[in-house]
Amino acid sequence: MGNFKEDIEHVRAFAFDVDGVFTDNKITVTPDGDFVRAYNAKDGFGLKTVVEKGYPVCVITGGKGIALLRRFEMLGVSDLHLDCFDKLPRLKAFMEKYGLRPEEVLFMGDDIPDIPAMRAVGVPVCPADASVDVKRVARYVSGFAGGEGCVRDIIEQVLRARGDWFSDDFGTTVTSA
Amino acid sequence: MGNFKEDIEHVRAFAFDVDGVFTDNKITVTPDGDFVRAYNAKDGFGLKTVVEKGYPVCVITGGKGIALLRRFEMLGVSDLHLDCFDKLPRLKAFMEKYGLRPEEVLFMGDDIPDIPAMRAVGVPVCPADASVDVKRVARYVSGFAGGEGCVRDIIEQVLRARGDWFSDDFGTTVTSA
Amino acid sequence: MGNFKEDIEHVRAFAFDVDGVFTDNKITVTPDGDFVRAYNAKDGFGLKTVVEKGYPVCVITGGKGIALLRRFEMLGVSDLHLDCFDKLPRLKAFMEKYGLRPEEVLFMGDDIPDIPAMRAVGVPVCPADASVDVKRVARYVSGFAGGEGCVRDIIEQVLRARGDWFSDDFGTTVTSA
Amino acid sequence: MGNFKEDIEHVRAFAFDVDGVFTDNKITVTPDGDFVRAYNAKDGFGLKTVVEKGYPVCVITGGKGIALLRRFEMLGVSDLHLDCFDKLPRLKAFMEKYGLRPEEVLFMGDDIPDIPAMRAVGVPVCPADASVDVKRVARYVSGFAGGEGCVRDIIEQVLRARGDWFSDDFGTTVTSA
Repeated sequence: MGNFKEDIEHVRAFAFDVDGVFTDNKITVTPDGDFVRAYNAKDGFGLKTVVEKGYPVCVITGGKGIALLRRFEMLGVSDLHLDCFDKLPRLKAFMEKYGLRPEEVLFMGDDIPDIPAMRAVGVPVCPADASVDVKRVARYVSGFAGGEGCVRDIIEQVLRARGDWFSDDFGTTVTSA
Repeated sequence: MGNFKEDIEHVRAFAFDVDGVFTDNKITVTPDGDFVRAYNAKDGFGLKTVVEKGYPVCVITGGKGIALLRRFEMLGVSDLHLDCFDKLPRLKAFMEKYGLRPEEVLFMGDDIPDIPAMRAVGVPVCPADASVDVKRVARYVSGFAGGEGCVRDIIEQVLRARGDWFSDDFGTTVTSA
Repeated sequence: MGNFKEDIEHVRAFAFDVDGVFTDNKITVTPDGDFVRAYNAKDGFGLKTVVEKGYPVCVITGGKGIALLRRFEMLGVSDLHLDCFDKLPRLKAFMEKYGLRPEEVLFMGDDIPDIPAMRAVGVPVCPADASVDVKRVARYVSGFAGGEGCVRDIIEQVLRARGDWFSDDFGTTVTSA
Repeated sequence: MGNFKEDIEHVRAFAFDVDGVFTDNKITVTPDGDFVRAYNAKDGFGLKTVVEKGYPVCVITGGKGIALLRRFEMLGVSDLHLDCFDKLPRLKAFMEKYGLRPEEVLFMGDDIPDIPAMRAVGVPVCPADASVDVKRVARYVSGFAGGEGCVRDIIEQVLRARGDWFSDDFGTTVTSA
C-alpha cells in the first residue's frame, strides 16, 4: 500500500453502496410501502462520465424499490445488485467478470455491511459521515457526506489522477444527470 | 444513578418516540392528507440489529400514517403504538410484558409529550436538537440530531458497552435497512 | 417600544406566513402540479398548544395547495388565508375580529410580502434566514431558521413570558403534531 | 472586465441552469420514474420579480420531468429548455432574440456542462457549492448554495445595483412564489 494519490491512478473500476453514499441516508417510505430516495445531480454527472468513458461500475445495495432500480439503469450502470446483504460474492463476481485485480478497484461504502467488500479491494473509501467502523477500514474519507457529493469527489480525484478528467476548454458534449 | 457508561450495560430493552428522533422533525403532508417521513438508513441498521439480537423494542408516537406503520413493521418492531399522546401507560405495559425494571430500559424522546415516559426509565436519552425541557430530563444528549443518526448512536453505545456490537472481522450476515 | 422580553407578555394572538417560516423555503412541485411542503413537528406541537390554550392564530400565505390547507386545519387554525399576496387587509380583519390592539399581536414573516403586515403589529419577528429587508423590520430574529423550529421558539418564549408554558411536572395531555 | 458591482448594473437579462442552482442538487426519483425537485420560495419571489419587471429570463437544463416544466411556466419564464446538454446554442439564440450583448447577460451555473455558456456572457456567476471548475470560470461565487437562495441573492444584487429593487415602503403588490 503506497501513496493514495499515486495508487488511485491504477483504479479502472468503481463499486458503490447506495444508502449513505449516493444519498444522505434518508429513505422516504411512501403510503404504498415503496421507498423513495433523493440523488445528487453532481454525483450523477460524475457517474455518467465514468460510464461513458468505459469504466466498469458496480452498485451493490441492501436497498430496494423500483425507483432505485430506475435511477441506476438511467445512468447506465450495468452491474446492479439490489436487496443484497452479502456483498462480497457480488463484488468478487464483478472483479472476475472484468478481470480486475484488487488494486484496480475502488469501493465506496458507509456502513458495516460494506466492510467485507471494502477489505477485498485496494482502494476502499467512504463519505465524511460513514460509521466509525467503516472509517477505520477506509483509506480515504471524503470531505463530502453521503448524498452531498462524495461520489463525485472520488470520481473526480481518480479521473484527474489518471489524466482522464475534462480538459480546460470544456467543449464537452457529455450528458448530465 | 451511577456512571452513564456503566449504567448502559444494564439496558436490555429500547423505547423510542418517532418524530424528532428517527426523523429530523419534518413531516411532509401529501395532497391526499397522508403523512410522509424520511428515515435514516444507519438508524435502520442499528434498530434491525437490536431486534435480531432479541432486545425488546417499543415505539410510541403521537404520529400516524400508514407509511409510519409500514416502516417499523418492516424493521421487526413488535410493540408499536401510533396516534398515542399519553405515552406512559404504553411504556409501563411494555415494561410489564417483558418483566423490565426501570434501569433496564432506555427511552429516547425529543419533546414535551415524551417527558413522563423518560422519567419512568433509568436511561432517558435525547437527540442533539431535543427541546430544552427534554434536555433537562435526559441523562445523555446525543451529538447527533433527530434523523441524523441519534438512534444509531445510542444503540451502538449500549451494544458496545455490553460487548454485543460486531466483532472486528465484520463477517456479518445481518440485514440492513 | 420597550424591552422585548417585557413586551411579549402582552401578546395574545399570533399571525404567521408559511413558506420560509413553517418551512425551510422548499416547495416540492409534484408531477400533478401540486405543491408539497415539509412541516416541523416541534413547530406543530407549539402551534397546537397555543390553539388549545385559546390564543387566536392567523395564517396568511401566498402559497396554495390542498396539502397546505389540510396541515393547518388539522392543527386547529381557524383564520387561514391561502393564495393571498396583499396580507395587510387580512391581518387587519383578524385584529378587528378579536378586538386586538397592535401590541397584542405577533407576526412572523420572512420575506418582502410580509413587511406591510409586520409593520402593523407591535411584535414583528422573523426566522434566522429571513431576507435582509425583513430582518430590518423585525424586533426579534430567531436563532432558528424557517422550518427548523423558529415558530416553536417564538411561541415558547411568549408563553414562558406569560407564565403559560408547561409546568415542570409535564403531566400533560396536550396532543402533539 | 471592470468592477463586479459596477458591471452588474448593465445586466438586463438572466439565464440559469436548474439542478444545483435552483435546487440543492437533490433529484427524487419516484416509483413511476418521474423526477421531483424542491424549489426555494425566496428564489421564486426573486424570479417572479424580474419576470414582472420585464427582464428576459432563460432557463436551460439537462434535467427533465413534467414537474420541472410546470414550476418554471408558473413563474412566467418564457425561454425554457429542458433535456438540453449543449447549452451554448440555446443561450446564443436567447441573446439574439432579445438583442443582448454579452455584458448584458448573467448566467448562473454550477457544473461542467454550464461552462461553455458561462464563458459566453459577461457576468458568469455560481452558487457556493458549485464544482471547482465552475468556480474558476465564475466572476462571483454566491455565499448561498444551490437551492438555499443563490438565485435570490444574485437577482437582489443586480436589481439593487440598478435601482430596481423594492423601495423602503414595501407597499408592494408583487405576487410571491
